[in-house]
Amino acid sequence: MSFSQTIHVRTGVPYDVMIQRGILQSCGKQIKNILPKANRCVIVSDSNVAPIYADAVQASLKAAGYEAFINVFPAGEENKRLPSIVGMYEAFTQAELSRSDFAVALGGGVTGDMCGFAAATYLRGIPFVQIPTTVLSQNDSSVGGKTGIDLDCGKNLVGSFHQPCLVLADADTLATLPARYVTDGFGEIIKHGCIKSAELFGLIEEHGTDMQMIEELTARSIAIKAGVVERDEKESGERMLLNFGHTIGHAIEKCACYTGIAHGEAVGIGMLIMARAGEAAGLSNPGTSDRIEAVLKKCGMPTVCEFTPEQLCEAAMLDKKRRGEYMNIVLLREIGNSYVYKIKCAELLDFVRKGMGK
Amino acid sequence: MSFSQTIHVRTGVPYDVMIQRGILQSCGKQIKNILPKANRCVIVSDSNVAPIYADAVQASLKAAGYEAFINVFPAGEENKRLPSIVGMYEAFTQAELSRSDFAVALGGGVTGDMCGFAAATYLRGIPFVQIPTTVLSQNDSSVGGKTGIDLDCGKNLVGSFHQPCLVLADADTLATLPARYVTDGFGEIIKHGCIKSAELFGLIEEHGTDMQMIEELTARSIAIKAGVVERDEKESGERMLLNFGHTIGHAIEKCACYTGIAHGEAVGIGMLIMARAGEAAGLSNPGTSDRIEAVLKKCGMPTVCEFTPEQLCEAAMLDKKRRGEYMNIVLLREIGNSYVYKIKCAELLDFVRKGMGK
Repeated sequence: MSFSQTIHVRTGVPYDVMIQRGILQSCGKQIKNILPKANRCVIVSDSNVAPIYADAVQASLKAAGYEAFINVFPAGEENKRLPSIVGMYEAFTQAELSRSDFAVALGGGVTGDMCGFAAATYLRGIPFVQIPTTVLSQNDSSVGGKTGIDLDCGKNLVGSFHQPCLVLADADTLATLPARYVTDGFGEIIKHGCIKSAELFGLIEEHGTDMQMIEELTARSIAIKAGVVERDEKESGERMLLNFGHTIGHAIEKCACYTGIAHGEAVGIGMLIMARAGEAAGLSNPGTSDRIEAVLKKCGMPTVCEFTPEQLCEAAMLDKKRRGEYMNIVLLREIGNSYVYKIKCAELLDFVRKGMGK
Repeated sequence: MSFSQTIHVRTGVPYDVMIQRGILQSCGKQIKNILPKANRCVIVSDSNVAPIYADAVQASLKAAGYEAFINVFPAGEENKRLPSIVGMYEAFTQAELSRSDFAVALGGGVTGDMCGFAAATYLRGIPFVQIPTTVLSQNDSSVGGKTGIDLDCGKNLVGSFHQPCLVLADADTLATLPARYVTDGFGEIIKHGCIKSAELFGLIEEHGTDMQMIEELTARSIAIKAGVVERDEKESGERMLLNFGHTIGHAIEKCACYTGIAHGEAVGIGMLIMARAGEAAGLSNPGTSDRIEAVLKKCGMPTVCEFTPEQLCEAAMLDKKRRGEYMNIVLLREIGNSYVYKIKCAELLDFVRKGMGK
């Protein structure tokens, strides 16, 4: 039996997420259904992914009647910068894209973030299609419209909210993915279970990272994210729940200078610390953190980090978006049930200490 | 009697345009009314305007309780580029702006376009206030939310739609404006009359560029633009009317390599050519173009350019945003009554020839 599911995301401008093996090969046909009047497009991909899939995507787009061009930027988080964006602008100009034409983000989270930002700002906004090729991007970042780049002075400081007009998630592309990127992506799937669905969480408890299950997990993961984003597109309320594990997760990444630990792994540890701290403070049901620890281990993910509570809280407080006496953190009542909790900045360190058993 | 008028712009997120002499001096108080929870801001201004007004604006913001910083970029259209935007991002970061803080665009159209783009993309969008100090920006560009910059490969290719949260138009600032920038701005005021208001057009026929009248003209000009923008915020229909005179106007600027002729002057000639061509083709009422020619002369603006119809049409067709067999141009039925006309690209040259009497 082959899996095929379409999730409709009802944002300001709505769009579909189609989850189906092999759909990359017929992307041109799918895109033609929603952008029948477009003539030209640029496929944006990095130097790792382009050699594997760009030709197939280009061929499908050409077969659908589009003029299709390819723009390749150097792979790696360190290239999530303005110079790569300028390269995309130049490719869009050379391809003579008009406002009714489109870009295609073919790759992982960095590619989607950057291609989305270039599309958001070229001619004050052109449509773009996401063809995510990693667990992380298929289960999280390709949906929701957050786009952005890093500056010398900080990560993700520049960006836009710009929803894709279509997302095509093809699990066949995950076969070429190094194992570490698989567990990386599971961090966000586990998070979606933690904040909204005990059922999804239970599936991971049972099956771990068994890739036979991935489409089922992706459909549930995306349905959860889509629901949150629909209700709060620009992150003024409920969308904050998606940050569960991220305050400490980002701090871990920062303390590690963004090397050695993947984003999803750092978020996993961040979730565990928050759950333990929540239990210690009587704000989360007992047993919640044990289940998170067990599921991380089942997925082959780390459960501890080398940094002290002091180091992590200092890094968290330096985050430029955080000011004032209070800050918002996300806690679980229990698995599948989350809420935003306002904590005094001065009390964060004690809270995190409890979460780390120190 | 002192003039004071507030125009409410009902875009997705609505905002006020306050037209009043001296209001720059009390900008802090006005901003406090709409951004009571913000703590910090950056005033963005160019090297011409900052020395005249930045201190007064900063003092008013500080008196209102804000931490206020100043970012100055080198004056001139040639600096409407990414490096200036990066400078603004760095200033925002150094000032530790959060999503609830704001930027202030203090200056002409270039300053508003760039500060608006930086605000649109910093932390995925922070509020910004326009304090326009030129006739062009007070009567046109500060309202409507078009922000953008130039690339090496073309003008205004990159940008966002990002409405300001407040516009403060202080006609006192026009006293320091070189005369040529006054007539430059009148190009767009005349355009607003042409497309929507015979009454506004009549006031300019009677008073020319008499600066005693400027607030009255500004109030009418902004009311027209606000109405169009409210009904079509993202330029998919009616907003195209605001391009009257711009197809040929941009071509004139391009042929002149953007030197020697101001934007408003080029638009003035563009409007006249389109009106004459419209009359010759039986698409505009007789006498329309004579009135435009007379009002341009009354305002001390040029009515002819040195380029041939062939040169202008070639430049217009090279415009990267224009593709396909047909293009949209804006014509007048009569003064105050405009419409979008679909013309075959192949017929544009003949049409423009008629408009230039050739």
